[in-house]
Amino acid sequence: MDITQKDSIQGPGNWAASTPLLRFLNACHNDFIADNNGEVANYIPELGKANPGHFGISLATLDGHVYETGDSRVPFTIQSISKPFVFALALDRLGAERVERTIGVEPSGDPFNSIRLNSENRPFNPMVNAGAIACSGLMLEAEGEAAVEAIRDTFSRFAGRKLDVDEAVYASETSSGDRNRAIGYLLRNSGVIRQDVGKVLDVYFRQCSVLVTARDAAIMAATLANRGSNPVTGEQVITPYAISRTLSVMTSSGMYDYAGEWIYRVGIPAKSGVGGGILAALPARLGLGSYSPRLDPHGNSVRGIKVCEALSSHYGLHMLSRSDDSRNSVIADYDIGKSSSRRSRRPHERKFMAAYHRDVRVLELVGTLSFSSVDYISRRLSGGPPPQLVILDLRRVAEITPPGARLLAEQFQELTNFDITVVLSGIDRTSPQWKSITDWTADLSHLRNFPLLDDAIEWAEDLILHRHGGAVDAVETAELSDQPLLAGLTAKDLKKLASLAVTRKYEPGEKIIAAGEPATSIFFLKSGVVHVRSPSGMRLMTNTAGTAFGEMALLETHRPADIYADGAVTALDVTLSDFERYRSENPDVGEQIMRNLAHLLADRLMLANAKLNLLAAY
Amino acid sequence: MDITQKDSIQGPGNWAASTPLLRFLNACHNDFIADNNGEVANYIPELGKANPGHFGISLATLDGHVYETGDSRVPFTIQSISKPFVFALALDRLGAERVERTIGVEPSGDPFNSIRLNSENRPFNPMVNAGAIACSGLMLEAEGEAAVEAIRDTFSRFAGRKLDVDEAVYASETSSGDRNRAIGYLLRNSGVIRQDVGKVLDVYFRQCSVLVTARDAAIMAATLANRGSNPVTGEQVITPYAISRTLSVMTSSGMYDYAGEWIYRVGIPAKSGVGGGILAALPARLGLGSYSPRLDPHGNSVRGIKVCEALSSHYGLHMLSRSDDSRNSVIADYDIGKSSSRRSRRPHERKFMAAYHRDVRVLELVGTLSFSSVDYISRRLSGGPPPQLVILDLRRVAEITPPGARLLAEQFQELTNFDITVVLSGIDRTSPQWKSITDWTADLSHLRNFPLLDDAIEWAEDLILHRHGGAVDAVETAELSDQPLLAGLTAKDLKKLASLAVTRKYEPGEKIIAAGEPATSIFFLKSGVVHVRSPSGMRLMTNTAGTAFGEMALLETHRPADIYADGAVTALDVTLSDFERYRSENPDVGEQIMRNLAHLLADRLMLANAKLNLLAAY
Repeated sequence: MDITQKDSIQGPGNWAASTPLLRFLNACHNDFIADNNGEVANYIPELGKANPGHFGISLATLDGHVYETGDSRVPFTIQSISKPFVFALALDRLGAERVERTIGVEPSGDPFNSIRLNSENRPFNPMVNAGAIACSGLMLEAEGEAAVEAIRDTFSRFAGRKLDVDEAVYASETSSGDRNRAIGYLLRNSGVIRQDVGKVLDVYFRQCSVLVTARDAAIMAATLANRGSNPVTGEQVITPYAISRTLSVMTSSGMYDYAGEWIYRVGIPAKSGVGGGILAALPARLGLGSYSPRLDPHGNSVRGIKVCEALSSHYGLHMLSRSDDSRNSVIADYDIGKSSSRRSRRPHERKFMAAYHRDVRVLELVGTLSFSSVDYISRRLSGGPPPQLVILDLRRVAEITPPGARLLAEQFQELTNFDITVVLSGIDRTSPQWKSITDWTADLSHLRNFPLLDDAIEWAEDLILHRHGGAVDAVETAELSDQPLLAGLTAKDLKKLASLAVTRKYEPGEKIIAAGEPATSIFFLKSGVVHVRSPSGMRLMTNTAGTAFGEMALLETHRPADIYADGAVTALDVTLSDFERYRSENPDVGEQIMRNLAHLLADRLMLANAKLNLLAAY
Repeated sequence: MDITQKDSIQGPGNWAASTPLLRFLNACHNDFIADNNGEVANYIPELGKANPGHFGISLATLDGHVYETGDSRVPFTIQSISKPFVFALALDRLGAERVERTIGVEPSGDPFNSIRLNSENRPFNPMVNAGAIACSGLMLEAEGEAAVEAIRDTFSRFAGRKLDVDEAVYASETSSGDRNRAIGYLLRNSGVIRQDVGKVLDVYFRQCSVLVTARDAAIMAATLANRGSNPVTGEQVITPYAISRTLSVMTSSGMYDYAGEWIYRVGIPAKSGVGGGILAALPARLGLGSYSPRLDPHGNSVRGIKVCEALSSHYGLHMLSRSDDSRNSVIADYDIGKSSSRRSRRPHERKFMAAYHRDVRVLELVGTLSFSSVDYISRRLSGGPPPQLVILDLRRVAEITPPGARLLAEQFQELTNFDITVVLSGIDRTSPQWKSITDWTADLSHLRNFPLLDDAIEWAEDLILHRHGGAVDAVETAELSDQPLLAGLTAKDLKKLASLAVTRKYEPGEKIIAAGEPATSIFFLKSGVVHVRSPSGMRLMTNTAGTAFGEMALLETHRPADIYADGAVTALDVTLSDFERYRSENPDVGEQIMRNLAHLLADRLMLANAKLNLLAAY
């Protein structure tokens, strides 16, 4: 299929809708609409009224986008496509044990309407009519009169909109369903069905008569492909256990006596219905729905099969042809000697950090944490010397798969066994990532978490300082002579400057400086901690006693960032006009201060460049 | 299984080997070794000599790590585990058409040694003896006498070491293989085999007698799980097509009449052999090998089955239970107004860039580019207004899957249709990522690539400047009055400074300054371009005529970085001692220069922070 030709439906003129995948689906529609092979099903008389020319395709992605082409909004009855969904629902409502005792999971090699049972007098699997009718019986057993509504409601949640029953088709199925009645009585005879056969078949005929479109089918398939979470509505419709088992029976038996060929050639779990629909779900990738009522002798939509085959062969999409590089998940791995926190540290603290920075190992992670990537992280950690703290930064981790989450929880236990503290950053306790980890972690008391990596590093630094006896007294006050911005000034110069200053006090959380205001003074922090935050909300720096803030007033006329008091703060405030006068009266001092400022900026630039370097940002 | 107990084999004392996955495998070994159910196979007399107590487990990851526990290096004969590998080899050597015409791919529901053929008188599939013997026949047809060696060699490349035949087992198989002889003659009778039946069976008996260990089986399985590329040796042993089709028949028929249950319950394609081996391959995740010769009535290793079940259930690993968030692959998306190149631009260039920065869209990508992530990127691109250039930065992309590569190539065509230039950065034309893209791209003339993102942005900036008429004359020369570091100085001051300078010329590529040298002078660039490179090789800045370099000498005693001439360069060299004397004689000028330097550093810090912010680096 050549989808690159300029004359395909989706011309180059329409930028906004232009993606290669839509172009591909349009090309499929264009090419296969010419195929008029196959016949509309007529063993249920009402189905024979379908328009044989209708052809719609829809593809739903797992981030919730729905592509559509052709008659993707034309309704048709779901028929056998209902089977996997009722099986999944039964697994959740009645429990796996009950369902798996009633219905087998081996392929029968028979056509869909086979009346044969397996050696234990049970249906071979839930994809043949016998198994599906047994499933309807289980739902009737569990829900009574509400079974039909429960099924319709579940289909609706899979599709993301309210679905209705086509009463004419339902009546037609009821009046022509003798073969299914025969199966029903056989099942009751062997004890698989315990309810009234008429009532069970009523549930079955109604579930088969629910109206869907190709678009609905695509979203339902995408929900199967997305571990039961509808990617459009975000609702978790069915448990992941039921979904993976449903996809298993679709894989082994979904295409009846054609199942082996289907896995071999197409490799995408699929289900078709005699209404003309086909639904295909490629796990972790996409859901496909198509509608074209002309059927081949197996009862599958001719054009729909062609769409599945083309999608699989054109892009090489096959559920068993996957690759993934687990090493991708680590974007940076360093100790904090390479990237300290943005807290300005006093000289004696710097000395401690220079000696003990290897105690804190930081791994910045990205993407999806799978089983493989977590195992890779485990081996990476155990490859180096044991640190005292491990910080795992998860702010770029969008998802932790259940296998990855369990292995990660075990890794935390492993580290705890070695008395290593685990700190998670970029995650809060309401996020789904936190939930997936803590599902497997019995004891959360060992886990620390911080929204920001910088906070985690700062906390780790404090802990290391404390452990090695370098802890600072929090109420310490600093003199102007401690200020790096004033380094090299004489005692006389400092005294003169002090005489210009006004002492100011701020409450915890108070905003001291607002971005955008005119910059009218410079502050020298005497006690307490402040932090600098950019207008976009990112924390640029933390200042402790003995450092200056608002010092960019020496260069800029307006404040570039907000500054907040972290705790109670005392600072000396020197107005810019006083400061400028002071400097012009002492030109040597003026140059020295500017040199000191340039030094501070050069240090910060070095830190920023080091962080960029760690992220391979060059 | 509780793998977190402190007393499991792998105690907390051994940090270097400590990962949860190894702990899990050790726990499996510990728990299941107590199971003495099942019997050693004895229908081939030599197999009966196996030590029933042996039990080894090995798991190979797709990044090439091999976990081992127990008797993982004890050799055993491969037996039926040979079947998928010979099938894969036959697909590659004889072509899919020939092989698929000879052997079916539907499950038979029969035991492995069934003598029944399908309705077309062909073997049901390559996993039953009839299909495997037909495969050996195909190999004999293709390779003649060399067939045995070709098979042994292929097995060896799957395992990553030279494998040998166990001559005693081979002799024993030969003398006791009458049922297989019956199958052989039946196949010849129906025209499936055309060679001498004795010779075909000789190939078959020899392939079954190849000696492997649990470790070998794990690596062979990992090669299947890794699209045919051996993760330990890096060799592409078999084509991805043959691998996915082989895994398909393992899925539908690998466990014989137990296949449906196996997919349903375990969900990992697997193959067992009567020698006591089991091999399981979870695509894109891992390969598992186990050895324990006690077999259940189906002929499967009792303890091996338990290991597969435990691995699947403990971690929830099932091939149909996967998830992935395609949005993870975009780590940053911006136009170059948010992150310009590190080339210092003249004021009139800055004006143009301020007006036209939206013409260049940059997407920084990360991880594995799958079908889903490329489709997401397509939609993200078509969501905004059409730019003139799109830069896709791939330096953090470790892999592009084949479906992703094809869709990406189609996306390039899509952009080309709209006359949008595509630039790839962080990739060179020898990398596998480049190959995977260009496999699908007929016309490479539209694709630009740069090793560094910054170079790509700089090139795009130049193109935009050129298109909008703001191009700079490359041979332009600059005066000291153009220097931002000297802004605010009077003509008299500048003249005085010029009198201290010596004009120097450098050849293209010449190293002007070396990191670590004493910083003895400052350079003012008159014409040409230089770039600043950190000792680790990352480019920090590009300087053009009218800017200074080596100016950090004003703050630091030694050169922090290398500086190279990009083309022919002319620069004014002012020694630090002259400069310091000049400044001390003109204190106002001294302060102004320091202020200018602080300004330049503040600008660079802002750019670095903006780049960090784009990467969500806070």
